[in-house]
Amino acid sequence: MSWLETELSAQPEALARLLEQQTGTAREAAKLFRGQDIRYLLIASRGSSSNAARYAQYLLGRAHRVPVMFATPSLYTIYNQPPRLDGAFVIGISQSGASPDVVSVLTEARSQGRPTLALTNAVDSPLAQAADVVLPLEAGEEHAVAATKTYMNSLGAIALLFSEIGPDAVAQEELARMPEALAAQIELSLGDPPELEEYRDAAGLTVVARGVNYGTAFEIALKIRELSGLMTEAYSPADLMHGPIAAVQPGWPVIVVAPNGPARPTVEEVFAPLRARGARLIAVSDVRAVLRRAQTRLPLAPGVPEWLSPLTAVVPGQAMALRLTQLRELDLDSPRGLRKITLTT
Amino acid sequence: MSWLETELSAQPEALARLLEQQTGTAREAAKLFRGQDIRYLLIASRGSSSNAARYAQYLLGRAHRVPVMFATPSLYTIYNQPPRLDGAFVIGISQSGASPDVVSVLTEARSQGRPTLALTNAVDSPLAQAADVVLPLEAGEEHAVAATKTYMNSLGAIALLFSEIGPDAVAQEELARMPEALAAQIELSLGDPPELEEYRDAAGLTVVARGVNYGTAFEIALKIRELSGLMTEAYSPADLMHGPIAAVQPGWPVIVVAPNGPARPTVEEVFAPLRARGARLIAVSDVRAVLRRAQTRLPLAPGVPEWLSPLTAVVPGQAMALRLTQLRELDLDSPRGLRKITLTT
Repeated sequence: MSWLETELSAQPEALARLLEQQTGTAREAAKLFRGQDIRYLLIASRGSSSNAARYAQYLLGRAHRVPVMFATPSLYTIYNQPPRLDGAFVIGISQSGASPDVVSVLTEARSQGRPTLALTNAVDSPLAQAADVVLPLEAGEEHAVAATKTYMNSLGAIALLFSEIGPDAVAQEELARMPEALAAQIELSLGDPPELEEYRDAAGLTVVARGVNYGTAFEIALKIRELSGLMTEAYSPADLMHGPIAAVQPGWPVIVVAPNGPARPTVEEVFAPLRARGARLIAVSDVRAVLRRAQTRLPLAPGVPEWLSPLTAVVPGQAMALRLTQLRELDLDSPRGLRKITLTT
Repeated sequence: MSWLETELSAQPEALARLLEQQTGTAREAAKLFRGQDIRYLLIASRGSSSNAARYAQYLLGRAHRVPVMFATPSLYTIYNQPPRLDGAFVIGISQSGASPDVVSVLTEARSQGRPTLALTNAVDSPLAQAADVVLPLEAGEEHAVAATKTYMNSLGAIALLFSEIGPDAVAQEELARMPEALAAQIELSLGDPPELEEYRDAAGLTVVARGVNYGTAFEIALKIRELSGLMTEAYSPADLMHGPIAAVQPGWPVIVVAPNGPARPTVEEVFAPLRARGARLIAVSDVRAVLRRAQTRLPLAPGVPEWLSPLTAVVPGQAMALRLTQLRELDLDSPRGLRKITLTT
């Protein structure tokens, strides 16, 4: 079996380990969020970690009602004009903890006396060394180039922080049930996979989602893209409608991620204009009525609250990426020309 | 002649009008940036205006060394949990001033007592009414669905603000020369267009840029996409290397935007891995050595400082979008299924 399949299936176990071993650390880290002078969060990340950062943008923003922004590393590394960070609480997310651009943001923040937190799977990495507090991802070593369990545990770490800011006992209980829900989701997505042959030679795909699952759209797109080599992209419904939908031709596959929750109605609004353009629709949802609107249905395990739905909603996308890659007879563990650790400035 | 061609060619005149008529307003607006308790800028926008917002992120961030974040409208409109905006200076950018999501962010900011500024071409729009100060774009009425002169004047308004924060006399002089530079650029891009037939039936294109031109990559991608219907996307070099490059197949066209300046060397680093994958390279630059590395060369007018290069660097992209649309025999003024004003929540 490939590392990718092994690691995809190990996600429930990895998430359980994170919750078991790092709840205390998350509780300590959550105290940093309560600092008197914190006006906003600044997150530095690349690749899959940036998709986890989008989850943090919606979740941590709602937890403390502080806005969340993403760092622009080039202001630090190229223009040498890092912003003044008064009011910032700075978070670096990196599986490897090695990318110089992410490290440079935390180093600058610390030199300005701002609190810093690293979410990383490598506790002795440069990123971990640059941060005040380290929340280890506990994903175990990841061998496949495409991130699965480190992405999952990045989401888990963010959910853990969310449940400890406050703290929120209901959220803690809901999170504690997620390893089991995730196991059910993996069984559902891998055990009874839909027919995907028709998408094997698609020119590309578009993934649409909003709100807490906005990052899910980007992660599903990245996973399909780096593994299968298909040109895959992600949009919010609003951004898609502001021009980019013009390129959706008849037959173009669009994955619509719409779990039950406040974001669902506005995401569902894309079905009609996409159908009018002849797009092939693929739905990811726990709502039967949503699944019925699509020709390919990727069901979600029931009973997951919307705020935790990104943990399960990414799985049908991971499974689809896996299946398309097999259909295209490509290497699951080493996509052509990619390396596990990418160093950028 | 199409409205698109008329409006594309009218950009120098529109920019000159903005500079002539609104420098005083920009000076007043710049005072808002100097508020004691301003820790960061929050920008709300959609579509082309979001690409202008990326310019503001690099430029205004550098001007006052304040970080710039983009609003997440769904927290305001769907989740009904708008963030606390202490420390924020809030800017809405919208050609029409009509999109409810952008207006909702400014309305909330104002109800929290934060300073607000609207950059809009419609001075009696809901967005203008929701803001403390309005900086009119002075682009004149825009008829084509695809924005050209309103995008240009959004960049111009941001550059004007930048030159008035401080204020910076050198920047003011450099900006005053831009209508002329823009006229030279339009002459260069439309008067002596390169052969583009080979890209007419491309499956899609990728645009790469960084730093002040990061938004230029998104705007060129959007323009080509909405007009020609080709599946076009934008990436920073670092983000492209973190996985998405896996989908670049032999023959895939990549537009590399690399004007002279601090960002240029790291943008140029993508040439080698892209060539190794057999990509067809298209360069936008004022540097002969950069142009020579590509098979299709889109030259930039000389003598434009990097901070103003987004105003000229978008023009070869607009011209390429125009030409590809003509080659594909599509309507320049009304891309299939798009409307001039898109209302999203």
